[in-house]
Amino acid sequence: MAYTAETWPIAAALLQFPGTLRDGSSVQDAPVESWVETLSEVGRVGFDNVDLTDSWLRIGDLTPARHAEFASALRHLSLTVPAVSITRRSVADPVAGTENLAYAHRTIDAAAELGAGVLSIGFHQPLTAAQREQLWFWNAAGAADDVDDPTAWARAVARISELGRHAADAGLLVSIELYEDTFFGTADSAVRFIEDVDLPNVGINPDIGNLLRLHRPVERWQDMLAKTLPYANYWQVKNYTRDEDPLTGAIVTTPAPLELGVVDYRTAIRDAVALGFDGVITCEHYGGDGLGISARNMRYLRTLLPSEPALGAVQSADVLKEHVG
Amino acid sequence: MAYTAETWPIAAALLQFPGTLRDGSSVQDAPVESWVETLSEVGRVGFDNVDLTDSWLRIGDLTPARHAEFASALRHLSLTVPAVSITRRSVADPVAGTENLAYAHRTIDAAAELGAGVLSIGFHQPLTAAQREQLWFWNAAGAADDVDDPTAWARAVARISELGRHAADAGLLVSIELYEDTFFGTADSAVRFIEDVDLPNVGINPDIGNLLRLHRPVERWQDMLAKTLPYANYWQVKNYTRDEDPLTGAIVTTPAPLELGVVDYRTAIRDAVALGFDGVITCEHYGGDGLGISARNMRYLRTLLPSEPALGAVQSADVLKEHVG
Amino acid sequence: MAYTAETWPIAAALLQFPGTLRDGSSVQDAPVESWVETLSEVGRVGFDNVDLTDSWLRIGDLTPARHAEFASALRHLSLTVPAVSITRRSVADPVAGTENLAYAHRTIDAAAELGAGVLSIGFHQPLTAAQREQLWFWNAAGAADDVDDPTAWARAVARISELGRHAADAGLLVSIELYEDTFFGTADSAVRFIEDVDLPNVGINPDIGNLLRLHRPVERWQDMLAKTLPYANYWQVKNYTRDEDPLTGAIVTTPAPLELGVVDYRTAIRDAVALGFDGVITCEHYGGDGLGISARNMRYLRTLLPSEPALGAVQSADVLKEHVG
Repeated sequence: MAYTAETWPIAAALLQFPGTLRDGSSVQDAPVESWVETLSEVGRVGFDNVDLTDSWLRIGDLTPARHAEFASALRHLSLTVPAVSITRRSVADPVAGTENLAYAHRTIDAAAELGAGVLSIGFHQPLTAAQREQLWFWNAAGAADDVDDPTAWARAVARISELGRHAADAGLLVSIELYEDTFFGTADSAVRFIEDVDLPNVGINPDIGNLLRLHRPVERWQDMLAKTLPYANYWQVKNYTRDEDPLTGAIVTTPAPLELGVVDYRTAIRDAVALGFDGVITCEHYGGDGLGISARNMRYLRTLLPSEPALGAVQSADVLKEHVG
Repeated sequence: MAYTAETWPIAAALLQFPGTLRDGSSVQDAPVESWVETLSEVGRVGFDNVDLTDSWLRIGDLTPARHAEFASALRHLSLTVPAVSITRRSVADPVAGTENLAYAHRTIDAAAELGAGVLSIGFHQPLTAAQREQLWFWNAAGAADDVDDPTAWARAVARISELGRHAADAGLLVSIELYEDTFFGTADSAVRFIEDVDLPNVGINPDIGNLLRLHRPVERWQDMLAKTLPYANYWQVKNYTRDEDPLTGAIVTTPAPLELGVVDYRTAIRDAVALGFDGVITCEHYGGDGLGISARNMRYLRTLLPSEPALGAVQSADVLKEHVG
Repeated sequence: MAYTAETWPIAAALLQFPGTLRDGSSVQDAPVESWVETLSEVGRVGFDNVDLTDSWLRIGDLTPARHAEFASALRHLSLTVPAVSITRRSVADPVAGTENLAYAHRTIDAAAELGAGVLSIGFHQPLTAAQREQLWFWNAAGAADDVDDPTAWARAVARISELGRHAADAGLLVSIELYEDTFFGTADSAVRFIEDVDLPNVGINPDIGNLLRLHRPVERWQDMLAKTLPYANYWQVKNYTRDEDPLTGAIVTTPAPLELGVVDYRTAIRDAVALGFDGVITCEHYGGDGLGISARNMRYLRTLLPSEPALGAVQSADVLKEHVG
């Protein structure tokens, strides 16, 4: 495994940058200068890697000329795109599923052309009106997959498998994120799904923050990671404070830097690396200064990742005996 | 606009320093050594600028001799007072309004003599017994202005206008803070009030933290800032985590560093600067280590403020074309 | 008083390291290499001092040979153990009290041999099943002492006095932690207990975080510290955010770095030092990255502790007059 703490690809998600500018125009149609403005801000806080979140820009929908402009902007800013993330365009969407599948295929080709190694995808659908009215969208329920319907399950497996094979041809991994009320709504369901797909380049994005922020009982984070880390090939990390008030039953969660939330990423990262995880890590953060917190998280992660290839157990014992005697 | 990230006047509020010392004596009557002790602590955490909060010391009530002592202490410590803040001495107070008005006039003169450029003021009244019993005083309702009474409104406008004219003569701005249940209890009300006053040196202190910490529905912070930033001439910044539990209706807020709370100050500062805001920024923080968090916030703000005067849009596009082209 | 900010013994608790390894074996029986692995991680984040929490390793239950191995590991890593902490082995436990008393005696001897100066102890008993099922164990009630039973009280005082005399012979302090529903469940009760023991080397560990995280009304932290700091001879510091929702009665608390929680440690440390406190400070943190936050807290504490012996009041006034004049 080649990465060390210093070289591990840790990317900024672009969640905090809306796809529609204040004048009502779309980032998709914006001049390259507008793209450069956003991307330079990402670079300025310390990121070399960008996870191209498609809520900001849909690389799969650019013309070749505009794609070239975008690639040129990245080069100009010395930024790399190790992963491209499709959000809220589920291939299991009952209305837009087929359209979303075609879009995912286009995105694989565009991502490969950009040099990305991962297509990140999920089964979450567009925010509902109720979600948009909340302070935090996850405080209302969103659209749900028909997890117990074998036909729906099989069709979703088939579509992801189809994307997986295309991605393999293009040299990409496909990673699917844990997300409530979808086929990846629990660790167990995600593992079962990935085993049904059974392709070496299709794995789990163990984004347990999506579940830990919910105002409902959730599985222990230790258990969710124990189940999903063996299948992880990419990782969107984020953290939340969480308390469950015994007096009233209130559940309260707030976005927190990785270091400060309920998940112990020191242990989580160590366990993942011990299991052989060597994927792209993407920093996401909702609320407040998402970009600034993501940069802080990136620096924190580098203190947790191995600074050099670990000694084997036997060698390590020898070294210790020498020193401790 | 002359300020850059390095030179922008960012001041420490003195909220965490009580006006009554542990032996029961008043800071007002304390020897200069006591003032120096407090002010040096503010300097030691990294501040060059102090917002002279009058819950600690009422500059308007010092004799000329003691005023000179205070000014000498500031010089000795290389501290500047760009703003003086009057708290809980509302000119609309039904009992003490007239007395508070006279006090505000004295404070303008004293602040000018000290070299301050801003008088910060608000319509909040002394804490009620119920507020003092709370863990956080804002968890109980305080005194309220008669916002819908045209006579009360007109009298408040008249008194602020009177202060505004005096302040203009003395070379000061007047800035009035957003505060729940007062004439500045909502962004809309604040804007209407400022337009009624209609003086170039009287503006809004868009202290939206005062509203976001409340256990009641509040307007989106983005909307409050969009309405008030065009009128901002001074800014008390603070942040809070906030969650609204859909299960029980519980609302939970806790004081947070600027970077970690619900308001995105990265966007807020950028928008303010784009609108031409060039006022004093004051760091307030309740709970825990208010001074330490204020210092952390000051350093964070300097990473958000423009490091140099922005290029005009045309020039910027030219530069980009040259590099990206 | 010899300590300064740089030299003050600030130790890491080992709460985040379980006593049972993942393979089901015990840290107690683990090879020295396993101990070194854990202790080096503590050193790597910046600690020179370790508070030997017995939920990880019971120094009192090691054979002389294994004790020597442990001491050698500490020397190898340049780590000091200024304090040993016994947790959840109350000498007032109705079942295991006598056994726990014998264990505490053994631990005093072992701690002294290791060069520790403090035995930290408390009346908290093993977690109940209900506590273990909670997200945070303190969200359910645990075992309680019979605080109002004079016989139980007297027996507890006698046992602590017995330990105190043994510790004095061995050159150790004994410090007892504030803990809900025990003899040290309130500041008043803790003070009364310590006065009943009345030994110069037995004092209070004013670990108010244990109480401030509870979902019930708690005494103001300022009042708890005012009562207990005069008796403090060792201090486990930790902090929590806390809010009490007036709408629903919900109480919400989450673990927070020292700087960010409800207790103002800037004031607390200053008051403690002014009262002559010169004890070991131990950083504890539950939830998330306990070790990383403890290291952050250690660095923060060093910014609060006096950088040099304070000038006497008269000298200080002289210096000021000279400068301010």
